[in-house]
Amino acid sequence: MRKRLTIENYKNGILAGDRIILSQAITIIESGLTQDRKLASELLHEILPATGNSLRIGITGVPGVGKSTFIEALGKHITSLGKHLAVLTIDPSSKRSGGSILGDKTRMEQLSHDPLAYIRPSAANLSLGGVARNTRETILLCEAAGFEVIIVETVGVGQSETQVKGMTDFFLLLMLAGAGDELQGLKKGIMEMADAIAINKADGDNKTAAALAVQEYTNALHLFPKSESGFESKVVSCSALEQTGISDIWNIILAYQSSAKTSGFLYKNRQSQNLEWMYEFIRQTLEMSFYGKPLVKKALRTVEKSVVSGSELPVKAAQDLLDLFFREDILD
Amino acid sequence: MRKRLTIENYKNGILAGDRIILSQAITIIESGLTQDRKLASELLHEILPATGNSLRIGITGVPGVGKSTFIEALGKHITSLGKHLAVLTIDPSSKRSGGSILGDKTRMEQLSHDPLAYIRPSAANLSLGGVARNTRETILLCEAAGFEVIIVETVGVGQSETQVKGMTDFFLLLMLAGAGDELQGLKKGIMEMADAIAINKADGDNKTAAALAVQEYTNALHLFPKSESGFESKVVSCSALEQTGISDIWNIILAYQSSAKTSGFLYKNRQSQNLEWMYEFIRQTLEMSFYGKPLVKKALRTVEKSVVSGSELPVKAAQDLLDLFFREDILD
Repeated sequence: MRKRLTIENYKNGILAGDRIILSQAITIIESGLTQDRKLASELLHEILPATGNSLRIGITGVPGVGKSTFIEALGKHITSLGKHLAVLTIDPSSKRSGGSILGDKTRMEQLSHDPLAYIRPSAANLSLGGVARNTRETILLCEAAGFEVIIVETVGVGQSETQVKGMTDFFLLLMLAGAGDELQGLKKGIMEMADAIAINKADGDNKTAAALAVQEYTNALHLFPKSESGFESKVVSCSALEQTGISDIWNIILAYQSSAKTSGFLYKNRQSQNLEWMYEFIRQTLEMSFYGKPLVKKALRTVEKSVVSGSELPVKAAQDLLDLFFREDILD
Repeated sequence: MRKRLTIENYKNGILAGDRIILSQAITIIESGLTQDRKLASELLHEILPATGNSLRIGITGVPGVGKSTFIEALGKHITSLGKHLAVLTIDPSSKRSGGSILGDKTRMEQLSHDPLAYIRPSAANLSLGGVARNTRETILLCEAAGFEVIIVETVGVGQSETQVKGMTDFFLLLMLAGAGDELQGLKKGIMEMADAIAINKADGDNKTAAALAVQEYTNALHLFPKSESGFESKVVSCSALEQTGISDIWNIILAYQSSAKTSGFLYKNRQSQNLEWMYEFIRQTLEMSFYGKPLVKKALRTVEKSVVSGSELPVKAAQDLLDLFFREDILD
């Protein structure tokens, strides 16, 4: 078992920007052990006053769109401006078990050697909503450690991108030119939620197609409801390979931040995100307690089958499981 | 207190298509009384084998888009083909309290006198997710009563349209020409979720603008991810006033139904909807039990304030409430 520091040690280390201590603290936050959860909760409470000062950016896109290369290019641009950058990657397909994930650091090799950048890959904790809880807390730790920009990367499939949208200030969707196969894996509704769409790999033979895609998506998004922020979604093209369009995207993000700060939306949005985080945590805890009960666990598969086959009414099936849950609660 | 029939009476009445008994049964389903919930559950179980045979259509759009007039026109078209039609309307702004809502029947006057049509307005039960639960059950009762087409209407704001999408086979969004004010109230993501968009009020001076809108939205939707069903979202214009485009929309819905039946998607989608209904009911029941506890109720407002002000970590706030909940559980 690894050595534990005191809360005071962690707090001071993080506030001083010590990355080794930061990494250890994130590991504690990601831990499922009761003693770690308690320590994490106390630590987060301690560093809370030092949080909230970063620009939080969510970046999503289906596999193959070039996320890592793009984030490396954008990241290098951000650090070239003297900003401290943390990159949190979520990989729903991998599971952390004791050791660490090395894949992501090699994916962004230049950035990983950049003294102003900090890359933290996190395996999706596959238990209910583990992704969201840990990443939100990790954002806070990184803010306390002095990172001014935080990028949260997610694969654009499944539920994770909605969660990332709910914990960031700006949501960027990466796409490729042409409404082809790369659209297939994209979840419906995501395009409408993006604050900006970047058509990536706009290089070589792709340039013309990318320019056309920018025009088409700009026209399309104009027809869709505006964001609550009042900010009109932007579409741009870029090439991480040829290093074009990267600074444009950064300027769009800065323009968004500036206007959202002035209008008060940035602050208001974070307030709602915090409330939603609280409700979500309650929901998850109640559900974990429910689905974790042995009687419920044992019956669930059979009940699901009868619902799928249509032989049982969903409400009745739910009620049967709830009866088991509450009965077991009394037997406890 | 109103007279109660036996389960057998209700069942036979509904299966015989008796609308008075159907209406009474729906009222029981919407009731919050324990004895009614028990009766409702038994009744639903009894009629379950007679359900599932309708075409379920969700229709949404912001206030002012002309939903009632449109539904009346589409409804008259459907009944003119000899089909039995039930229209369930959800109004999030109204509350049923003992009496009934008369507004909706006057809204669709012709349809309300049509012997093949049955209109049931339901006030949104403002408790957690009441909308979804009752409407799903009402759909089943109407199916058992022999209705072949069921239209569920919802106002295109808030959460209700996602719920309606989750209980219907086909989701139609009504819009007006021009990306103006009517987009403001529309929730982000809804347009991408629609199986068809109908540009309403394509009459008089609006005709040209409507034709242009059809073209623009068709181009736009082409750029967006395809539906899981494989069906490409359609855009059409219509005028409930001039009775144009109504049969086109009906034919699109029929084409969708036919292709979704052939591909097996219709059945698969309903299976997932049923499972989601079960999970959703469990979630709602757990949350109602949580937020209904006196200790939690009492503390909630203060806790929310501290989260919004940023003085308390959302997870910590949630944990404090959960501690109160589980402590109270033990004291019970």
